[in-house]
Amino acid sequence: MSTNISKEKMRFWSPAVRELEPYVPGEQPKIQNLLKLNTNENPYPPSEKVVAAVQAVLKDSADALRLYPDPDASELKHAIAVQQQVPVEHIFVGNGSDEVLAHIYKAFFVQALPILSPDISYSFYPVYSQFFAVKNKTVALNADFEIEPKDYQQPNGGIIIANPNAPTSVALGLSAIEEILLANPDVVVVIDEAYVDFGAESAVSLVAKYDNLVVCQTTSKSRSLAGLRVGFAIAQAHLIAALEAVKNSFNSYPLDRFAIAATVASFQDQAYFEAQCQKVIACREALSLGLQNLGFQVLDSKANFVFASLPSRDAAELALALRERGIIVRHFKKARIEQYLRITVGTAEQNQRLLDVLQQDVLA
Amino acid sequence: MSTNISKEKMRFWSPAVRELEPYVPGEQPKIQNLLKLNTNENPYPPSEKVVAAVQAVLKDSADALRLYPDPDASELKHAIAVQQQVPVEHIFVGNGSDEVLAHIYKAFFVQALPILSPDISYSFYPVYSQFFAVKNKTVALNADFEIEPKDYQQPNGGIIIANPNAPTSVALGLSAIEEILLANPDVVVVIDEAYVDFGAESAVSLVAKYDNLVVCQTTSKSRSLAGLRVGFAIAQAHLIAALEAVKNSFNSYPLDRFAIAATVASFQDQAYFEAQCQKVIACREALSLGLQNLGFQVLDSKANFVFASLPSRDAAELALALRERGIIVRHFKKARIEQYLRITVGTAEQNQRLLDVLQQDVLA
Repeated sequence: MSTNISKEKMRFWSPAVRELEPYVPGEQPKIQNLLKLNTNENPYPPSEKVVAAVQAVLKDSADALRLYPDPDASELKHAIAVQQQVPVEHIFVGNGSDEVLAHIYKAFFVQALPILSPDISYSFYPVYSQFFAVKNKTVALNADFEIEPKDYQQPNGGIIIANPNAPTSVALGLSAIEEILLANPDVVVVIDEAYVDFGAESAVSLVAKYDNLVVCQTTSKSRSLAGLRVGFAIAQAHLIAALEAVKNSFNSYPLDRFAIAATVASFQDQAYFEAQCQKVIACREALSLGLQNLGFQVLDSKANFVFASLPSRDAAELALALRERGIIVRHFKKARIEQYLRITVGTAEQNQRLLDVLQQDVLA
Repeated sequence: MSTNISKEKMRFWSPAVRELEPYVPGEQPKIQNLLKLNTNENPYPPSEKVVAAVQAVLKDSADALRLYPDPDASELKHAIAVQQQVPVEHIFVGNGSDEVLAHIYKAFFVQALPILSPDISYSFYPVYSQFFAVKNKTVALNADFEIEPKDYQQPNGGIIIANPNAPTSVALGLSAIEEILLANPDVVVVIDEAYVDFGAESAVSLVAKYDNLVVCQTTSKSRSLAGLRVGFAIAQAHLIAALEAVKNSFNSYPLDRFAIAATVASFQDQAYFEAQCQKVIACREALSLGLQNLGFQVLDSKANFVFASLPSRDAAELALALRERGIIVRHFKKARIEQYLRITVGTAEQNQRLLDVLQQDVLA
């Protein structure tokens, strides 16, 4: 880790922590009026029932704030179970899917053999590996940025795949996921479905069949609750038990009372949820087409973002030019994808603003 | 860990996780009308400004919920810095002090030598040691349940002490803490001040002087915000940097928007905070006296709970008798303290109800 701390002061740090290279989240600028298309937030607000649920907690504020929340968040687990149509014993909840993923690494992936993940994927995966002192082995996506199931037939201590993958936006079908599950019956296979609600197939339907499958989801994207920090995992009970043992050895009460109440309300308003996802999907298709009309190559997205490159222009330069015009998109300075931009799907108006700025200014 | 999971299914768990013995939090019963004197929550609500701050977040709900919070929670760090009169660079925040303590173990205590803590103290400490695969060495309190600084002059990889200690309620003076700091200049000494605002001396005033001191506090007790999950640490910048490296390798956004806004408001209402602490202290003194009048031996408490034993009666039986009458107190089935009850200080009315039930029924 690059740091300006003297060697003498560094003696207080745990030796392994001196080597950590932390995750760098997408920028959360404090400047007003920026069009933020860089962290895959939902452009639409959550259900009004979410706001009402928080108001209800506040009405009982004397007790709501001073008393600990339910450490098990059982009301929330129940609401998720109903919506996902799985037994409540198959659900684990945590402080955002990042915390859930951290607990997944600790619970299943501290093994002698390396953990496999795609070479281009969520950049937190190798950070967790380093944090838990686990070997990390990346498996290259094919030339079309797709996951090839046969590449996951090699000795490993566990597998983690984002589906749809990020930042590529490309989805993997359930038959390919089953192929990976069947080829790895003695290790846990994690499918990280942060973006699944925007058109990919969820592996939750496979949980009853596979005793080595963990599906991880978040409320930050499709449920418009990034401000609240709630993620969850779905798996058979013997895997959930490991996650609970880890969680209860780390932090007993990760979810506060507002987060629990708000998320329960979100899961209970299925109609709103589905309508918002459809709106994002429609906006994504229009944005992809608009970008293609400007000469961009756009991968087939099943997420709430697109991954696009313009052969005639350097991607880092494009990102900078957009930023100077008040629009932030995400660029990764990383092999194979340095000529791509990851652009969050905004509202129809926001997407049009991006296309207009590109057409009339940046690319004019 | 005792579990009913088959050996065959256990193969999926990380080997070390199979051995974990998680922390067991105090019961959060769902039954109405119980008098909960078991988890050291504050009997008074937080400042009304806290409720107003959450309302203000909700008024801007469209953006407040769908957008990620500030991963650095810099507004909150600033509010804490002002109240604690320390530079903002000396502050770390997390999802409850339990998460802050977990990060402290990872950042400083993963060392070859054992971590020292009192034999009777917060029962999460040995759980963290096991979680991070660190040797744990307990140091016996003296016969009066006091910490003896000279006992901490032995080879170690770090020291953690709760002050006031829990569940004993006994406080340690700053000169004793300085003695421990001076005797251990090459390891981090953590003073866990969850209960410090109820009458003990805070070691925050020593942070500028000692480069090996970390002070940890919580908003769950003296600020009546247990429902929100916010804790913090104060230390010199080279130690805060280690905590940030750990946090950013684990979960980028641990505090949600409601928790940040509410806690900022709490730190900005110093007058309310001080008045509530004084009320709790006055109730504690009255409760101690009332228990002593019934024959209890009560340790000199500087916390928002008392630690008491009745020579003529078995403590576990007493706890059960109280529970049958709708009052929950905490009993630890643990050597040296199995004849004690930890009783949270309630309102004057609640404490009187406890005393009445004891005098007129349980002990009658």
